[in-house]
Amino acid sequence: MKALFQQDLKVVNVGLQGFADNIAAAGGSVTQLTWAPPAGADAALGWSLANLVADPRVDEANRVAYQRCLAAQPRLVDLVLARDAIAGLGGGQRRILHAGPPIAWADMCGPQRGAIAGAIVYEGWAGSTEDAEALAAGGEVALEPCHHHGAVGPMAGIISPSMPVWVVENADRGNRAFCNLNEGLGKVLRFGANSPEVLQRLRWLGGEFFGALQVAVRGLADADLKPLMAQALHMGDELHNRNAAASGLLFKRLTLALLQSDLDRGVVQRALAFIAGNDHFFLNISMAACKATMDAAHGVPGSSLVTVMARNGVDFGIRLSGTGDQWFQAPANPVDGLYFPGYSVADAAADLGDSAITETAGLGGFAMAASPAIVQFVGGTPADATANSRRMLDITLGVNPAFTLPPLNFGGTPAGIDARLVLDSGVLPVINTGIAHRLAGVGQIGAGITTAPLACFGGAIAALARSLEGQPA
Amino acid sequence: MKALFQQDLKVVNVGLQGFADNIAAAGGSVTQLTWAPPAGADAALGWSLANLVADPRVDEANRVAYQRCLAAQPRLVDLVLARDAIAGLGGGQRRILHAGPPIAWADMCGPQRGAIAGAIVYEGWAGSTEDAEALAAGGEVALEPCHHHGAVGPMAGIISPSMPVWVVENADRGNRAFCNLNEGLGKVLRFGANSPEVLQRLRWLGGEFFGALQVAVRGLADADLKPLMAQALHMGDELHNRNAAASGLLFKRLTLALLQSDLDRGVVQRALAFIAGNDHFFLNISMAACKATMDAAHGVPGSSLVTVMARNGVDFGIRLSGTGDQWFQAPANPVDGLYFPGYSVADAAADLGDSAITETAGLGGFAMAASPAIVQFVGGTPADATANSRRMLDITLGVNPAFTLPPLNFGGTPAGIDARLVLDSGVLPVINTGIAHRLAGVGQIGAGITTAPLACFGGAIAALARSLEGQPA
Repeated sequence: MKALFQQDLKVVNVGLQGFADNIAAAGGSVTQLTWAPPAGADAALGWSLANLVADPRVDEANRVAYQRCLAAQPRLVDLVLARDAIAGLGGGQRRILHAGPPIAWADMCGPQRGAIAGAIVYEGWAGSTEDAEALAAGGEVALEPCHHHGAVGPMAGIISPSMPVWVVENADRGNRAFCNLNEGLGKVLRFGANSPEVLQRLRWLGGEFFGALQVAVRGLADADLKPLMAQALHMGDELHNRNAAASGLLFKRLTLALLQSDLDRGVVQRALAFIAGNDHFFLNISMAACKATMDAAHGVPGSSLVTVMARNGVDFGIRLSGTGDQWFQAPANPVDGLYFPGYSVADAAADLGDSAITETAGLGGFAMAASPAIVQFVGGTPADATANSRRMLDITLGVNPAFTLPPLNFGGTPAGIDARLVLDSGVLPVINTGIAHRLAGVGQIGAGITTAPLACFGGAIAALARSLEGQPA
Repeated sequence: MKALFQQDLKVVNVGLQGFADNIAAAGGSVTQLTWAPPAGADAALGWSLANLVADPRVDEANRVAYQRCLAAQPRLVDLVLARDAIAGLGGGQRRILHAGPPIAWADMCGPQRGAIAGAIVYEGWAGSTEDAEALAAGGEVALEPCHHHGAVGPMAGIISPSMPVWVVENADRGNRAFCNLNEGLGKVLRFGANSPEVLQRLRWLGGEFFGALQVAVRGLADADLKPLMAQALHMGDELHNRNAAASGLLFKRLTLALLQSDLDRGVVQRALAFIAGNDHFFLNISMAACKATMDAAHGVPGSSLVTVMARNGVDFGIRLSGTGDQWFQAPANPVDGLYFPGYSVADAAADLGDSAITETAGLGGFAMAASPAIVQFVGGTPADATANSRRMLDITLGVNPAFTLPPLNFGGTPAGIDARLVLDSGVLPVINTGIAHRLAGVGQIGAGITTAPLACFGGAIAALARSLEGQPA
């Protein structure tokens, strides 16, 4: 003891920063370690978590669910109108699907309202966006999450009956998932823009382009998406905010299919010129592939695997494999990002879109090591990108050997978020995303990085614990 | 001194490994540093080198030459038959260009002989490869390096009058460079194969395909190669052994140009199917772009900048900007690589081809950090790939800010080899390459990594020193 006081003290402070600050202020040397109690220091939730961590039923359920993720073989099998693929949009029903968990029109953020108004005009249910807003506000158009219909949509995530949707089928289990077409960047419906030029592009996409691409998709020599996505991860994509390589690889396949068709040359040319000019074209297919993958793992009783993460611009919602159709929500986080000139975080809508299905499947932010250009959005370095991927290993059930990342020595991407691990460690799933203006009609104003809120995982774990009460152990 | 002998010794041994081994054998702790005397311990050459290192004329000449490299703006301006682009192949002359420094038929390696025999049959100068070999052996066909005619060719590097060549023009200085078409992988002329199927593919490439691609190249909306190559470096290419991304980016440009032409649809389809199936298609364009870049820097008196590195399967030759058309040669090194099943280094020809022009311009092995998949050929890791690029900083005049590498924090690729630095440090330029079978007619048997021989740089430095003797200082 006497010797201790003769030495210089080397202090490690775990947790509250204030203790460390005082030592430093007194001239001492201190190393601060970030730490917070598990389960957000909620004692009851902490007990539930501790029980679930020790529960072999959860491990076994997760093993089954995770195996279904890894075994998924998503294939791009069709492009059809939404009303012909999604029962809830068929038969002349006035229903529109949106991103994120359920939300009433009155509570929606600006870009989601703007996009819905645009879609109502696109469908011909109203002649102007003003009339469209009145229709939506009056409850005359049903508004439901894409995820309630086996679908996903980026940003506002609007799917209305006359829009084309990609059909991705998981060859392993036969389940299908749907996503709308990518319109390109700038003033586009998914960022809440709804000007005449936006609707005109939608009409071309839903008409001539749809016709050509349906022929192309049905004529693909190779419809397997997993190898294409794996290759794109070796070419700088993380398949959420960066899809340049995957779009290029798909462009090759579509070109060969279109040239083998008897489609008019001008039609083929315009379709391919549109795809060639849109490096995000593959995003929506990546999302459908991830949705088909995670849906395969959904519905395993007792599983704490996260099968959905989605945002509606107000709330962030997740679903677990073991808790069925329940959503667990919390206010969506703002996005740390690079804003286009003239815009700042004050102009931004909160985190928005179903595209976090890519992170749910181990891509996007989880695969950021593959795509160092992404962290440049937030002033980061390639080392930060790799650190982001490595940190996700703390909260995932394993790595996906089908999706390897060169900067991790070709190790697999962290995949399969275990809600227990998130709540225990406080490490939040990292999400790459675009940023929409908070007002309707403006569009994209930036891109960046955010996280899923911890509270979603607390709610999910509490519900999972309840679901297992009274079940045979 | 007394204190020294009371401590544990920590020994650093510089140079000969034997001293370190003895210390370790005696139970001591030793750190071994690799070191060898400059200029291969040749005293006279060492003096010449020391004088050139201190000579401001060389620094100023290098500044001028290097600036021309950086300012180069290679553009893909045409595809024409070699006889219409290269004076030495026009007017019915029986001349064939080959890779590497000059070499007589009798001294050539198997794959180069095989490729020349194939080209002679392709030109119709002989009816069989046996007759063709007799013709070449009898001196009835002139054989000269591509580099003597402003051209480059990968592996055997054969360019005969009726073969199409890419025309790349450096918009900065107006100089042009040429390269033949890439035939794909497997049994191809550039690896020494010359079977009927090889010649049949060459005839299609020189006929229908040539006609289509000439129209496409002349109709390109964007002919600039530098931005495309920069983008490919962010997508896993190093633009020598890996060209998948660049080939994909070019495929998009060519597709749009072809669809705007009035070419027959079947012709367009076959042309694009060939390109889509060949991830090395861009290699030959990368080489022509690098040749146009380095030619712009050639011919600056006093400059120790390496403007050519090329191999003929027997010897490795380099040229310096300041020593005109002189070649400085040494036996080519073997290649450390991954061999196709059934083959080993015993079956391999020595290092072969003009493709090291990519390393000369700061790509290929110098840009290996961008392309970690390449080091997997030799059992290496992504960290080794990055280390290779970093090591090249020791022997280059700077970095090329137009070609940035994500794993180097988006720093530029090391570019502009200074022969003084190579000879002084003993650090050898690293080269990624394919491996040809040593016999004619077999083809590719692997791919890997090798280095330029030090002796080339010794000869070059001695000649540069002589060229400056008696010149005003």
